[in-house]
Amino acid sequence: MLKFYYAPHTCALASHIALEQAGAAYEAVRVDFSTNAQRTPEYLAINPKGRVPALVTDRGVLTETPAILLFLCQSYPKARLAPLDDVFALAQVQSFNSYLCSTLHVAHAHRMRGYRWADDPAAIKEMQRKAPQAVSECFALMELEMFKGPWVMGDTYSICDMYLITFAQWLEADGVDLTRIPKVVDHRRRMSELPAVRKVVAAELA
Amino acid sequence: MLKFYYAPHTCALASHIALEQAGAAYEAVRVDFSTNAQRTPEYLAINPKGRVPALVTDRGVLTETPAILLFLCQSYPKARLAPLDDVFALAQVQSFNSYLCSTLHVAHAHRMRGYRWADDPAAIKEMQRKAPQAVSECFALMELEMFKGPWVMGDTYSICDMYLITFAQWLEADGVDLTRIPKVVDHRRRMSELPAVRKVVAAELA
Repeated sequence: MLKFYYAPHTCALASHIALEQAGAAYEAVRVDFSTNAQRTPEYLAINPKGRVPALVTDRGVLTETPAILLFLCQSYPKARLAPLDDVFALAQVQSFNSYLCSTLHVAHAHRMRGYRWADDPAAIKEMQRKAPQAVSECFALMELEMFKGPWVMGDTYSICDMYLITFAQWLEADGVDLTRIPKVVDHRRRMSELPAVRKVVAAELA
Repeated sequence: MLKFYYAPHTCALASHIALEQAGAAYEAVRVDFSTNAQRTPEYLAINPKGRVPALVTDRGVLTETPAILLFLCQSYPKARLAPLDDVFALAQVQSFNSYLCSTLHVAHAHRMRGYRWADDPAAIKEMQRKAPQAVSECFALMELEMFKGPWVMGDTYSICDMYLITFAQWLEADGVDLTRIPKVVDHRRRMSELPAVRKVVAAELA
């Protein structure tokens, strides 16, 4: 059985939803960030990066959301979580998810975790100040150029939808003007109503 | 024929090498960053992100390095650029590449492009100061925990090797102590001798 390490309010939500949608047999294990459990020797032995998510399989541990999502798609092909038979369409899925991890998530992280890239408190404060602008620009680009509708990739629900709603949870906290991204906001509402999403969100916040 | 937009000294190098290794028929088009060509309406019509790389295919445009690399692996399976028949091994490849785009590349970018996350010159300068430490931590983690040897994924040469050497080109400029990462440095030396790598690097710098 798969073992899935997550923490609430993190990008692990995307993989958690995908595990549920795939119908995978998995055990979810919460990592307590409030006690810095992600930095204990026990957890670092699982994931030396000291972050979540981490998925323990019978072949070894997988980290990084876009990789875990692709792994779940390919391991549970009947769940049809990505267009596995279409090389170009799958590349579009990976492109979207890569943008989320390398640009959107990074912009967001400057609000809470500026210490990764600066020590001076004034610089960290300046990053916090600019984060809403950087995050808003990412969402505006997605709204205008990337989101096909009704789902991210068009008519077919995919891992992109699970990853997008993960960041859309933080729109208000990130200071994004919701009136400028109606498609993303409507997508969040529809995603939030899906049984798998409701179940996972409730479990993470319990 | 594929059309590949790149700029020298950018992460486009990884996809450029992969195109060559795949034996793909492609035209490489240089985007002149010195004149801000990536911000012209013509280029933004190709890639609204205003960045490189961008790969124009007969189905549409692909961006984001990990996605382009996977697309090339799957489009040219005979080149064996990734373990396409092994779901877990492929996920490991995608995990490594995802770490490069979302953590290593981001750490590096704080040395040159801090304006993405701050406006105050003092904050940008503070990011520049810390960048060597952040980049060094990424390379140390790769050296100790991720690099299998002799290639990134072990005995099999893959797209991970092409992506890693892209960042290893900048080790000195990023202020990384080479004596702490002997495996990465040796890998860079061996990669630099490959005909495909020599050809692409020469073409980009011509």
